Amino acid sequence: MEFDTATLVGAFDRAGIVAFAFSGVEVGARRNLDVFGLLVMGVVTATGGGVMRDVILDRLPLILAHPDYLAWAVGGAVAAVVLIWRRARYPRFVLRVAEAGGLGAFAVAGSLTAIGAGLGWSGAMLMAIVTAVGGGVIRDVLADRVPVVLHSEVNATAAGLGGLATWAVYGQSNSVAAVFGLSVAALVYSAGAAFDLRLPRPGGRSGAKR
Amino acid sequence: MEFDTATLVGAFDRAGIVAFAFSGVEVGARRNLDVFGLLVMGVVTATGGGVMRDVILDRLPLILAHPDYLAWAVGGAVAAVVLIWRRARYPRFVLRVAEAGGLGAFAVAGSLTAIGAGLGWSGAMLMAIVTAVGGGVIRDVLADRVPVVLHSEVNATAAGLGGLATWAVYGQSNSVAAVFGLSVAALVYSAGAAFDLRLPRPGGRSGAKR
Amino acid sequence: MEFDTATLVGAFDRAGIVAFAFSGVEVGARRNLDVFGLLVMGVVTATGGGVMRDVILDRLPLILAHPDYLAWAVGGAVAAVVLIWRRARYPRFVLRVAEAGGLGAFAVAGSLTAIGAGLGWSGAMLMAIVTAVGGGVIRDVLADRVPVVLHSEVNATAAGLGGLATWAVYGQSNSVAAVFGLSVAALVYSAGAAFDLRLPRPGGRSGAKR
Repeated sequence: MEFDTATLVGAFDRAGIVAFAFSGVEVGARRNLDVFGLLVMGVVTATGGGVMRDVILDRLPLILAHPDYLAWAVGGAVAAVVLIWRRARYPRFVLRVAEAGGLGAFAVAGSLTAIGAGLGWSGAMLMAIVTAVGGGVIRDVLADRVPVVLHSEVNATAAGLGGLATWAVYGQSNSVAAVFGLSVAALVYSAGAAFDLRLPRPGGRSGAKR
Repeated sequence: MEFDTATLVGAFDRAGIVAFAFSGVEVGARRNLDVFGLLVMGVVTATGGGVMRDVILDRLPLILAHPDYLAWAVGGAVAAVVLIWRRARYPRFVLRVAEAGGLGAFAVAGSLTAIGAGLGWSGAMLMAIVTAVGGGVIRDVLADRVPVVLHSEVNATAAGLGGLATWAVYGQSNSVAAVFGLSVAALVYSAGAAFDLRLPRPGGRSGAKR
Repeated sequence: MEFDTATLVGAFDRAGIVAFAFSGVEVGARRNLDVFGLLVMGVVTATGGGVMRDVILDRLPLILAHPDYLAWAVGGAVAAVVLIWRRARYPRFVLRVAEAGGLGAFAVAGSLTAIGAGLGWSGAMLMAIVTAVGGGVIRDVLADRVPVVLHSEVNATAAGLGGLATWAVYGQSNSVAAVFGLSVAALVYSAGAAFDLRLPRPGGRSGAKR
């Protein structure tokens, strides 16, 4: 059943790439970027986390080794630009579901890459977080704002737990590990979105800069 | 005639490094940075794109392997700091020409490096863009503003087309490929500057944050 | 006496990691980040410079190869979060001393890594600066402000001189080189902090953005 699991994780991976590309284009449109800038925002948001992971682990980035990943990112960004240009309405709920699955798939990919590089549980957790939220951090830095993941999202917590779950089960069955890690991350993310969960803010009442 | 081509591209490369160093120092001076900060802005703007390319492709950055490149960047930055400190006037037109040639040389260097790493046309185009505009993006992120290339320049389009042109001709003649790619990028850039060309902005009328 | 020197530099290294983690958490708290964001800011500030250095030199980052470094960063960040959450007062002077020693240890580590990679004096100086101030630059970019090191600190100057000092003495005695480089960087930093030294700002009177 290895094949089915790879197909499943791959499908969520691509769904996540498209959903993340949409989020990059949306943030860029609010900054009044031109068409090229929007495409860059979409592609960078969708692929930036994986590139950061591969650069840190000294591997050729997956989107350069396998250009079909890049094609999904460009396709998602182009679709988002067209929709926003035409001021079309599109179902955000579908994007949210794709983002949940994508976050899980990204976390699993990061964890498995770290395990493949011989790292332990802390490396697996770190690389899951970097893969899943790195693109969003680059998006927000380019958009000149404090990364959303640092103050209003549970995405990083979800990705870290998913990466840990993958690492914990990996020894027994690789396909179960992938599905388990993906589910943990997607569930934590969904719970966060459903109940608007936020982590406490120790810094006090003073309003954040935007 | 390989030698002459290499000399030509090398000359534009160095002209571009100096011109990019100037642009970094100019942006830094508007942020009231100190002398060291200005030098960093100049050097990072001039060399950041190449370092990003080499880091992504797992190579030792050229400026570390060949310190004379670093010397051109430092020299350009020092000259810019001195001129700005003395409130001297300097011919911006010369800088614009150097930037056009430099953008082309950077795009060619990115495309050739990608081809050397075994990548296809999409990798060549991506690495041309990263090499040519990466330094400016880092400059603008450090200066706490949305990268200019995302909303007001055709630099990335010019670099991408130049990188594609280099890739397309590379099989037949390497020297023709380099000159052709450089010319395409420099022409698109110059046309953009001459006619103040801008790509459309799908996001609508709302003013961008700076 | 090699062992003693390694112990000494290692102790300052860890002191610097903890002090840098505190500075990251402090900046994050001013931006009203949540608990996870604060931990990220602390860990990234403490380890970002070393990761940048290792990524540029194509090495597996030290914090992934030796997770005990990561543990010091996480421990420092957790301690800072707890103290800030409880609005406890803590002796800033101790942090300043730890930061001085840490800056020196980071500069020595950067310089030695560059020497080990076969680089010359310019590479040693650059890698000392990247290692010592890279984490702070990432911290400030994430916090959406112009990096402090570019306009108000002598940290980079101190690190660069410490890296050069390490490089200059390295041939004769490695342990003397480490202690000498660390001392030079720490002394320049301390002098800068004691006398509020600032480098001149050629850009003129106009106030910086923030």
